[in-house]
Parts: sequence; C-alpha cells; structure tokens
Amino acid sequence: MKAIVTASTLFNVQFYDLDPMNIVWHGNYAKYFEIGRVALLSKIGYGYNAMKDSGYAWPVIDMHVRYYRPLELGRQVEVVAGIVEWENRLKIDYLLRDPQSGLKITRGHTVHVALDIETKEMQWETPPVLRGKIARWLS
Amino acid sequence: MKAIVTASTLFNVQFYDLDPMNIVWHGNYAKYFEIGRVALLSKIGYGYNAMKDSGYAWPVIDMHVRYYRPLELGRQVEVVAGIVEWENRLKIDYLLRDPQSGLKITRGHTVHVALDIETKEMQWETPPVLRGKIARWLS
Amino acid sequence: MKAIVTASTLFNVQFYDLDPMNIVWHGNYAKYFEIGRVALLSKIGYGYNAMKDSGYAWPVIDMHVRYYRPLELGRQVEVVAGIVEWENRLKIDYLLRDPQSGLKITRGHTVHVALDIETKEMQWETPPVLRGKIARWLS
Amino acid sequence: MKAIVTASTLFNVQFYDLDPMNIVWHGNYAKYFEIGRVALLSKIGYGYNAMKDSGYAWPVIDMHVRYYRPLELGRQVEVVAGIVEWENRLKIDYLLRDPQSGLKITRGHTVHVALDIETKEMQWETPPVLRGKIARWLS
Repeated sequence: MKAIVTASTLFNVQFYDLDPMNIVWHGNYAKYFEIGRVALLSKIGYGYNAMKDSGYAWPVIDMHVRYYRPLELGRQVEVVAGIVEWENRLKIDYLLRDPQSGLKITRGHTVHVALDIETKEMQWETPPVLRGKIARWLS
Repeated sequence: MKAIVTASTLFNVQFYDLDPMNIVWHGNYAKYFEIGRVALLSKIGYGYNAMKDSGYAWPVIDMHVRYYRPLELGRQVEVVAGIVEWENRLKIDYLLRDPQSGLKITRGHTVHVALDIETKEMQWETPPVLRGKIARWLS
Repeated sequence: MKAIVTASTLFNVQFYDLDPMNIVWHGNYAKYFEIGRVALLSKIGYGYNAMKDSGYAWPVIDMHVRYYRPLELGRQVEVVAGIVEWENRLKIDYLLRDPQSGLKITRGHTVHVALDIETKEMQWETPPVLRGKIARWLS
Repeated sequence: MKAIVTASTLFNVQFYDLDPMNIVWHGNYAKYFEIGRVALLSKIGYGYNAMKDSGYAWPVIDMHVRYYRPLELGRQVEVVAGIVEWENRLKIDYLLRDPQSGLKITRGHTVHVALDIETKEMQWETPPVLRGKIARWLS
C-alpha cells in the first residue's frame, strides 16, 4: 500500500456478523473498513469530532471490496488503512490480513469528498484543514 | 393486545438477517419492531419528522422480546404494533405472526420517554402534542 | 444496464439504516443490493434453496458501490438488478433509483464464483445448473 | 449480579452503531450482550464450537434490555455477563457500565433453552454437558 500514512487495528470476528455459511456476511466488511478508517483519521488528528468542528462532513462516494479468503468466528484480524489520495478527494485503501500468517483476507478502498455542512456544497478541492493535518506526513 | 390504536405491517425475511442456524438472528427483531412502530406512529400523525417538529425525541428506555418460533428466509411476517400506555410514558406492544396461519412468532414491547430536544430533559408526563394525537383514538 | 435478465424491487428506507448525518449509512447498501439480487435469482428459478439443492454456494468475491445521491428516512427506492456476466463467473449490476423521478441514487456490482459445497472447490466455469437457468433468457 | 460465574469484556462504540441522535441505536445492544455472552461461555469452556460438538444449540427465547444512559461515539464500555440460572434453562444477566466511573449504562438478560440439533427438540432440563461445565464454579 503506497500510502502517505497508515494505521493498523486489530479486531475479532463476532457471531452476529456471520451468515448461514458460517462465515462473515460480505456486507459487514464495510464495518471493518470503518474501524480502520476511524483509527487512521484519529491518528492524523482528524477524527469524527474534529471533522464536525472543521465544518466538513466526508461522505463516501465510492467503495470497492475484493474478497480473497472467508472469515470465521473468533478469528483475529488486522485492518490496515492508509491515505493514498488527498488533493481533490480523500481515497483510503484497506487491507485485512491475518496478523499471524500475514495472509491477505480482503482489499478495498473508499473515496470521500468534503461536504460543507453549512452550504451542503461538495468541495472539489481538499479544504485547508485536511491539508494541514496531512502536511506533517508528507515530509 | 389491549391497545388504544394499532397498525399492521407486512415484511419479508431477508438473507442478511439470518445467522449460522439459518434463522433470523435474535437481535434483528428490534428492527422488525421498529418497522411496526414507525407505521403506528405515522398512522396517528406522529412520525419521525412530526416528532422532531414537536421538539421531543422519544428514546427507548426498556425493550422486551419473547421468542416463540424461529423465522426462516423468505417468510412473510405481519407485525402488529399498538399503543398500550401513553399518560406518563409511551408503551408499545408488538406481535409478530404468520399472516396466513395466525401463528404467533414473537411478542414484545418497548417503552419510550419524551426528551426535550432543547433542554435534554426527560419529561415525566406525556407532552400535550402526543396527548392531542392520541385523543381521537380514545373516544 | 446491458443485462441478460433483470428484476426490479421496491423498498422503503428504515430508521435503523440511518447514520448521524440522517442519511443511510453507506455500508447498508450491500443489503439493498441483496434485496435486488434475491429477487433476480428467484425470477430465474435459482433462489437460495435452489442453489443449495444444486450443490453450489455463490460467495461474493468482489463488490463495488458508487454513491450519487443520499437516501433519507421513508424514501421509496427501486432496485434494479441484472445479470451481466455468467460464463465463468456471475456478475450482477445494480441500479438504485427514485421510482417517481427516475433519478439515479447508487450504482454497483457484485461478482460471484460457484463453490462446490461438498469439495469446497471454486469452479472456474459456470456449472451447468446455472447455464440451464439462464438459457431461456438468451434467446 | 448474583451470578455463578461472570466475565468482563471491554469494547469501543463504533460509528456504524450510531443513529440520527448521535447515540447508539437501541437495537445494537443485543450485539454488546453477545460480546459479553461469548466471553462468558468461552470462560467456562462452552464456546460456540464446544456447543456444536455437544450436539446442542442454545437459542434465545427471551431478551430484556433496560437503558439507563446513552452511549456516544468512541466511548469505552465494559460488559459484564454472568450466569444466574442454569438448571432448566440458561439465564444470563448483563451489565454495561463505564469502566472508569462505574456508572451503569444498561442492564438486561437473555434466556436460552437447549435444543437437540439432531431431533430439533427443546430440552426441559439442562443437558449434562452444561452441568459439567458449571460444576466447578458451584463449589
């Protein structure tokens, strides 16, 4: 992952995420990506509350998930999230892997665009606030 | 159900609500109750937007679910929701049943208290707005 | 959508699918796609039970979602699902739109590969059972 | 909680569990109870796989939740789960509290009955396998 900054988080597969095949239902991976994204944005000082204070929301406009291996109950999983684009839109890549073997479980990305909370207008350039947060990871 | 007013809604069991036993995961019934509650509150003219306009939120302070029979994929289910208390708090009873045979699937209730959205204070009596909505069903 | 066969289904946005922005949380669209997919596969006579009887499961190996407009509480939505590839893998395209205005809300796809339930082996060609189901829609 | 045996687990409130009030949607507490229950049953050596090997499933037949305080994003929560009945049915009590202040957030219970996986028959007495697991916590 050629990311400017990454964050790694561990989580455990819970029973309520399983489907009748006894594996995680494919739609639940959006939650696992979010666990990684929240950790990543907190790391750069731009967590949910900082976002709100900055006057911008960052809705998802695109999501892709590629499933390599299934996940079973009780498995521990590492999610690595990294910022790969930030100039016009925010693109975050995700890798889910087995923390012991390193085996790849899932890959994916989400793309976010800044939305001015007051005017409800999409921003076609990244607002200065996020540029500021990212600056220290660029050098 | 000795309710002042009831509403009946049909829904179908979806794959994403199933667990590894091939039946609906028990936690998902809170969603089915909500489908019934939303229909009921809309019927009396106090749906989500009307609530917000009235200045009150109605958080759940108590929920009970009694499971009689499991639910399998594709089953059509009727949820009947009815207001059974309203003077100090709002209590809604729920019945899930098979619309063909009438067989009982689940029973339960939720209890809600009015919360003033401005002051964040719990109301120990039902605000006039809900009394007004209920009045026409009392006579 | 250049699909061999499509199915259209209506659903309503529920409160439990909303996030703090008062719109549907982006991860919930996988459920809406599934509503469309289930209707589509039932239409060609290859619903969940028929799949199991055929000896194959069809896990999702790829999912993409492109979000054009947000969804608010109570909105009625049409999901159109269509089979666009079937020879080596099953690819289904999805379109969510407003049933009145026709305005596009979301687009996406899922890709599925047949998995022999007995041997747990991925099939690199579509098994005859699905070819049979699709045949009548090809002419 | 007058329990034979308890287990304590920590979790963090995630964004995807929030509702438009910016607090955890009430239906999600069934997941938090499950996190506690899984930890508890693992502790006595009767986790999900041990259950299946024993030939019994333990469906929920009753659930109650009492909500004292709301939960906001990022909060760390302790869930304490304890076995309070086991002779004819399995009753588990739950307490969610703030791990720092000890403030009570939620209380509740679930009741489970053993179901013979082969015969699909409900058991009106606790099967010997669970009695054996519990025996060491009784003295």
